[in-house]
Amino acid sequence: MAKSEQRHEVNFAPPRSFGTILKSRLKETLFPDDPFSEFKDETLPRRIKHGFQYFIPIFDWLPKYSLSMFKYDLLAGITIASLAIPQGISYAKLANIPAIIGLYSSFVPPLIYGVFGSSKHLAVGTVAACSLLIAQELQRVVNPAVDLQLYMRMVFTATFVSGVVQSLLGFLRLGILVDFLSHSTIVGFMGGTATLICLQQLKGMLGLQHFTQHTDVIHVIKAVVKNHKEMRWEPAVMGCIFLSFLQLTKFVKDKKPKLFWVSAISPMVVVVVGGVFAYFTRHNSHTIQVVGELKRGINPVSINLLIFDMKYFHACLKAGIITALIALVEGIAIGRSFAMKKNEQIDGNKEMIAFGFMNIVGSFTSCYLTTGPFSKTAVNFNAGCKTQMSNVVMAICMLLTLLFLAPLFSYTPLVALSAIIMSAMLGLIDYEKIYHLFKTDKFDFCICMTAFIGVAFISMDMGLILSVGLALVRALLYVARPSTIKLGRLPDSALYCDVEQYPSGTSVKGMLLLQLGSPIYFANANYIRERIARFVRDELASKSEGDGVHYLILELGGVTTIDITGVETLLEVRRNLEPKGIKIILVNPRLDVMEKLLLTNFVDKLGKESVFLSIQEAIEACKFSLKNEKIMV
Amino acid sequence: MAKSEQRHEVNFAPPRSFGTILKSRLKETLFPDDPFSEFKDETLPRRIKHGFQYFIPIFDWLPKYSLSMFKYDLLAGITIASLAIPQGISYAKLANIPAIIGLYSSFVPPLIYGVFGSSKHLAVGTVAACSLLIAQELQRVVNPAVDLQLYMRMVFTATFVSGVVQSLLGFLRLGILVDFLSHSTIVGFMGGTATLICLQQLKGMLGLQHFTQHTDVIHVIKAVVKNHKEMRWEPAVMGCIFLSFLQLTKFVKDKKPKLFWVSAISPMVVVVVGGVFAYFTRHNSHTIQVVGELKRGINPVSINLLIFDMKYFHACLKAGIITALIALVEGIAIGRSFAMKKNEQIDGNKEMIAFGFMNIVGSFTSCYLTTGPFSKTAVNFNAGCKTQMSNVVMAICMLLTLLFLAPLFSYTPLVALSAIIMSAMLGLIDYEKIYHLFKTDKFDFCICMTAFIGVAFISMDMGLILSVGLALVRALLYVARPSTIKLGRLPDSALYCDVEQYPSGTSVKGMLLLQLGSPIYFANANYIRERIARFVRDELASKSEGDGVHYLILELGGVTTIDITGVETLLEVRRNLEPKGIKIILVNPRLDVMEKLLLTNFVDKLGKESVFLSIQEAIEACKFSLKNEKIMV
Repeated sequence: MAKSEQRHEVNFAPPRSFGTILKSRLKETLFPDDPFSEFKDETLPRRIKHGFQYFIPIFDWLPKYSLSMFKYDLLAGITIASLAIPQGISYAKLANIPAIIGLYSSFVPPLIYGVFGSSKHLAVGTVAACSLLIAQELQRVVNPAVDLQLYMRMVFTATFVSGVVQSLLGFLRLGILVDFLSHSTIVGFMGGTATLICLQQLKGMLGLQHFTQHTDVIHVIKAVVKNHKEMRWEPAVMGCIFLSFLQLTKFVKDKKPKLFWVSAISPMVVVVVGGVFAYFTRHNSHTIQVVGELKRGINPVSINLLIFDMKYFHACLKAGIITALIALVEGIAIGRSFAMKKNEQIDGNKEMIAFGFMNIVGSFTSCYLTTGPFSKTAVNFNAGCKTQMSNVVMAICMLLTLLFLAPLFSYTPLVALSAIIMSAMLGLIDYEKIYHLFKTDKFDFCICMTAFIGVAFISMDMGLILSVGLALVRALLYVARPSTIKLGRLPDSALYCDVEQYPSGTSVKGMLLLQLGSPIYFANANYIRERIARFVRDELASKSEGDGVHYLILELGGVTTIDITGVETLLEVRRNLEPKGIKIILVNPRLDVMEKLLLTNFVDKLGKESVFLSIQEAIEACKFSLKNEKIMV
Repeated sequence: MAKSEQRHEVNFAPPRSFGTILKSRLKETLFPDDPFSEFKDETLPRRIKHGFQYFIPIFDWLPKYSLSMFKYDLLAGITIASLAIPQGISYAKLANIPAIIGLYSSFVPPLIYGVFGSSKHLAVGTVAACSLLIAQELQRVVNPAVDLQLYMRMVFTATFVSGVVQSLLGFLRLGILVDFLSHSTIVGFMGGTATLICLQQLKGMLGLQHFTQHTDVIHVIKAVVKNHKEMRWEPAVMGCIFLSFLQLTKFVKDKKPKLFWVSAISPMVVVVVGGVFAYFTRHNSHTIQVVGELKRGINPVSINLLIFDMKYFHACLKAGIITALIALVEGIAIGRSFAMKKNEQIDGNKEMIAFGFMNIVGSFTSCYLTTGPFSKTAVNFNAGCKTQMSNVVMAICMLLTLLFLAPLFSYTPLVALSAIIMSAMLGLIDYEKIYHLFKTDKFDFCICMTAFIGVAFISMDMGLILSVGLALVRALLYVARPSTIKLGRLPDSALYCDVEQYPSGTSVKGMLLLQLGSPIYFANANYIRERIARFVRDELASKSEGDGVHYLILELGGVTTIDITGVETLLEVRRNLEPKGIKIILVNPRLDVMEKLLLTNFVDKLGKESVFLSIQEAIEACKFSLKNEKIMV
């Protein structure tokens, strides 16, 4: 083929060494945020100092801390503590563990997060979904009503596993795993879990004595119907009043965001009012169920309680890994979204390490799984927290509560806790988002509903796994069926666009222009070969006799990488087209692709003169040689 | 932003309906080859006729069949039959089933393939890898030495499962599953299997009486060392002679391709010579082990032997599914590669249905798994076969053998079979290809070696699963870490290329040009956000104070699709950049992407004037408004 004059040089430099490529790949995969960019060009002592500040953020923010900031953090800390007490007790009940563990869990973990955490707004606490999931997984092995001691040991062990998993993921910089829990999955999972948890509260709200160990919708409804004779009006009325009050305060907050504190302290109000009421009616015949004994004193050590007997450890491992991932997704997503509001950055991998330490130490000190729950973090943010100090303040409040006030909460009615949980859960079902998914992306909607229905009707882990599986199938389908488009020239321009999108685009005589997208490799190599064959067939069928197709011009700018099977496919395409008198022209292969094409000698087989930098140049060269050929004939 | 004069209209047409998109997606996913394109615009009777011809190829080729073609098919059929007899007996021994089953399996399945198969060159027969795999899986449940009858029933059931799986995959047009067995995996798997099978033959070659049930390298070597006292020189010498002869004929074939028949009939020669020798030395003290009784008569019915008791069916199901996939990959790949030599097309999904029928009917008539083995197909092709008739001829030869000659083969020495198998297997270890992988793609090499080592040292299914798993991880990594490149303008041109690849590219003042590749969605959304943030950070750091970055121009031509999480990520990027005074400009979004951006109102938020068809236009418009702003200041 003759060279056209204006042609630009294609870079045929020999491929980089394997080491260079591997290093750059690893860097992109594990360090996409380039966390060490700040350390470049610094002396060793400064590097060490910077390293400390980087890995242990308290060294970074504490030296700059001032009294004026503390005012804000004090207020925020007290506010979230008032939320932590009722939530801690409620969620502990959800996990079928003693209420006091919920209070313990708001004391030690926030202190650890204060040291290692990098988000200024995150408030540490227990979360409903993980509490229920732990109960669901561990109850299969041990019934807490029969052997509470063993069950507790398994809960601590699961927390330990979560902590180890989280910090390992952080150290290995495998934040990438969290990326595979898509937004749609999380919306569906949260919605399904909220539904489950609301239904669980029917026991408390209706004052039932017997219920079911299962958590899925069908079993719970059956249990309610079966035990409907145990229903009592007193807790039902009280529950409805509390729930209405809580929902009302939320409504107030939504209308006047400045009154966020009304909603923040309302659970505490419910607990106090309910407790006082329960105290004064304790000798009455219409007794309402209360939390029961809460001992004074701080967290006992529990490191000796961890259990590694395979008979029980297996369930702890499963529960630990699943809850670790869910807690990470919730905590990191929330930290990130609040940081964004202040235009700050959060390093996901660092957060993972902080969460991991928090849960490892927590499991040693009678705490169960904690993360950064949405509600608490939002309150913390709105209360004006400035640094991680608000978590420390909350921890001190919890310390005082544990030392002096704990017994007071033993009169908290169960129905008050049910109302608090229900109110929190009703806010987690994101109808608008689900509708938005339905309107904009049906496949995302399916992924979301798979999680929702799976969680509600099968089990939480199965719902999650099915939904993630479906999302992965989609990811693989994208890979297996990359869209290939035919390009046409827009009138009066040198632009070549998809003829389906821009029907005014006209094809160039004697040539077929295709744009490939996404990597070419084993999973889609067959598809690409067949798709190209079909394009050629259609093109030949549509053209009149005289025209024919002489050049197949492949625009490779969108092809990010190619593997051996991919290269072989291109060779096959070439072999198939040769007898038809069609030559292949490549346009703008990227660096990775070009290296592979050079290594496999594909470029040599095709000829370097068949590779161009732009479609325009390729077409001109082809036209030129077509004209020459005609003259020759 | 002011509009530049030469600007081309971007297509903002409202998104297509969900039904339209779903239909086109399904078509691309399941019917990439557009098999019904021939049927368009035809009358109903012709469509029915065409349909028959399409689905049952014999209706297509038999009416055009002529005597002159039959001459070739007769010769080819006899040649492959002479190969089928020794191979059938050998591979049946590998599967630990009676030798006669191997002969049965070359009688019925070729007839079925003759009717339904679409490849003209494929020769049907049993294959070594699947034979060993069946033995490996089923021996875990039943020992054939103890209960051969039950073991046989399981073999037939596994074959039935394979047939059902294959035809289902074909009907559901799930050929896509086969795509996920990459070339590298297959090379490694074949190499590992060949190694295993060669080692297995040590028993026959050394005349050992005791051996191991295990197939992995370590167990086999241990067994040989342990039983080394049983070794006898007679079979060893005989085996070496046979093996050298077989390898010599292969060498001859490689040197003079016309003499392919020498290599094709050599196994038959070995069997006959060995049989005659064994017959005459049968009363000698140095007896060599022979195949043993082979009854006359055609395939007995075995449909009543299929076993669906869950205790045994489970293993059959696993063995059936794995062998179904491997057999499909081998059969389709081979059919395809020979069709390509004649510039013909093979429809993978149709082939699957043919293989499926072949194995279902086979399992009813005492056959075990068959497919299109490479060696036999190559012989068939070289012998000049013209149509599927050669398979029918082979079946008739087998019929005659079963009716009259079978007892003669009972004197076949086991060592002759071992030599035949070893010779076939030595050709399957593709050293050159493995070295080629090592040179060109280290990751593909790892995938290949995982299969090789996994098969050789763990088990065949684990090796395969590990290798496919690794390949999938790579597929997902491609998706999770798509390469994003910075574009620069090539000197004296309007071309914008990767600055890493073309270091002469210069950036445009006040703008940052990035080209994204591959879909943007949940698995890579976080990565893309961080990567863009890093590009912006680096760009701001490198530019001098006055310059700054005012526009982030994203070239989206390579982005094949986007999901909700992806759109939210772009919104986040926009929110992050806004405070820095950087505007986002989109260039050339594809149809799918544009539709999603319109549906989610992203385009409205960004403004339609921020979407361009080419980088050049985008840059000019940005320059224009930058100049205006300066004037305003």
